[in-house]
Amino acid sequence: MSESRITVAEFETLVEEAAPFAADYDFRVESIERGRAAVRLPASDRHLRPGGTVSGPAMMALADFTMYAVTLSEVGRVPLAVTTSLNINFLRRPRPGDVVARGRSLKAGRRLVVIEVDVFSEGMDEPVAHVTGTYSVPPGDSETE
Amino acid sequence: MSESRITVAEFETLVEEAAPFAADYDFRVESIERGRAAVRLPASDRHLRPGGTVSGPAMMALADFTMYAVTLSEVGRVPLAVTTSLNINFLRRPRPGDVVARGRSLKAGRRLVVIEVDVFSEGMDEPVAHVTGTYSVPPGDSETE
Amino acid sequence: MSESRITVAEFETLVEEAAPFAADYDFRVESIERGRAAVRLPASDRHLRPGGTVSGPAMMALADFTMYAVTLSEVGRVPLAVTTSLNINFLRRPRPGDVVARGRSLKAGRRLVVIEVDVFSEGMDEPVAHVTGTYSVPPGDSETE
Amino acid sequence: MSESRITVAEFETLVEEAAPFAADYDFRVESIERGRAAVRLPASDRHLRPGGTVSGPAMMALADFTMYAVTLSEVGRVPLAVTTSLNINFLRRPRPGDVVARGRSLKAGRRLVVIEVDVFSEGMDEPVAHVTGTYSVPPGDSETE
Repeated sequence: MSESRITVAEFETLVEEAAPFAADYDFRVESIERGRAAVRLPASDRHLRPGGTVSGPAMMALADFTMYAVTLSEVGRVPLAVTTSLNINFLRRPRPGDVVARGRSLKAGRRLVVIEVDVFSEGMDEPVAHVTGTYSVPPGDSETE
Repeated sequence: MSESRITVAEFETLVEEAAPFAADYDFRVESIERGRAAVRLPASDRHLRPGGTVSGPAMMALADFTMYAVTLSEVGRVPLAVTTSLNINFLRRPRPGDVVARGRSLKAGRRLVVIEVDVFSEGMDEPVAHVTGTYSVPPGDSETE
Repeated sequence: MSESRITVAEFETLVEEAAPFAADYDFRVESIERGRAAVRLPASDRHLRPGGTVSGPAMMALADFTMYAVTLSEVGRVPLAVTTSLNINFLRRPRPGDVVARGRSLKAGRRLVVIEVDVFSEGMDEPVAHVTGTYSVPPGDSETE
Repeated sequence: MSESRITVAEFETLVEEAAPFAADYDFRVESIERGRAAVRLPASDRHLRPGGTVSGPAMMALADFTMYAVTLSEVGRVPLAVTTSLNINFLRRPRPGDVVARGRSLKAGRRLVVIEVDVFSEGMDEPVAHVTGTYSVPPGDSETE
């Protein structure tokens, strides 16, 4: 188990530059380890459906952001790593309140990182959504090799 | 070829009530026919990556919204139709400017509607993203039957 | 944690009738619990790529079969439960030899069961493939309700 | 519109060496053009469900094989191109008889080819399954560059 190739602070700085739209969501990076990341989406009127639960698009944005953190934990500071595919299953309606995404890499290759993310609603044991996706790492840019 | 079960005006009214977060994106519904819908995401600083191109999460939100319009064109005014799954492939970097999603139903069953969406960047012939997804229609609520 | 709604023996009998093509693969059901199943694909010349490793289509067939077992563990003897979608990520080349799929339900609804499957190559710690999929349970046929 | 980088005859020779398990299915390559391929799965007792319709795993194998043909039409004779992901939606029950898959590339990059496949049942206008997937082309092996 090696160390993450990016710290939470480095990741947050990079995101401000490379993905400023993320600020809209007020994502809170809770932890990054090698191959793992946890990110919180605080409850906010901005992203709610009627009934006070988080919208599907907000969960997809959260999952994609978490996948980015997991990818950089494997390959280091590569701002141009991009999502090539994302598959989400919505499992159950979240409760009102924060949601937290927990991602882990299924495979960290030189060119592709495959990530799995479970999205949890605070106070529920079972995930509200399950996501898999792939990030592509530009050649020559990775710090893995 | 039968008529759409919802008009653009009816759809817009429903969205204001059922999915107010969509207002954040300023989606413009260009057309709804039975089994088809086109929705535009106007260029806006809000959803841009550095370089002025639309972010991945904004494209996923646009695709999901377009799938919702296609679903309601098949089943009528069913606000509680929900996404059960969405799969997106990001194909090429969009150009700066608007993006337009064109969706069509692959299958409109009583309980599940399966939809395909191509996302285009204005001025490009080839799609920037390809999406498939499934909406679930609550039992007893559909106006299809 | 309730009991599986189908036993290994009942599942094997049902498969002989409802999915005879499965016999081609010589799948061995190792265990079925409520919401979980493990199925082995024995190494065989039939399903190998050059180099002696299991082919992609054989792994997809194995994953689909495992999803079927997980579904019936939740809803009981419903032969007409059918796959509505399947998403697979191939992660690494299997080793020569048997592969084993381990599935678990992410959600067991009345109409849809969502399942996750990891496929392992004997002697490797990390999965060779990761699968998610959905089975649809025909209305009125489920023993869940 | 440039020419296919592989002919039907070259593809069939390559498959005999690189994917001998495909012979089990008796796939018939009907056509290969640059970025497109059509492949037929003849009706056979081997791959049928009760009722005489083609099984899900047989359709997945057919789609994967068609994706391989589309990929090689873009990159040429690269036996080690491999599936990295495949997503299938089963739309309607096929009729008894042959099924035909029609694939086309959505993106042909140097490292990844993204393909869409519609699977048709002979005598039906609407597809029985819709598939998207990605093939990875090993670096240095592609004839595209």
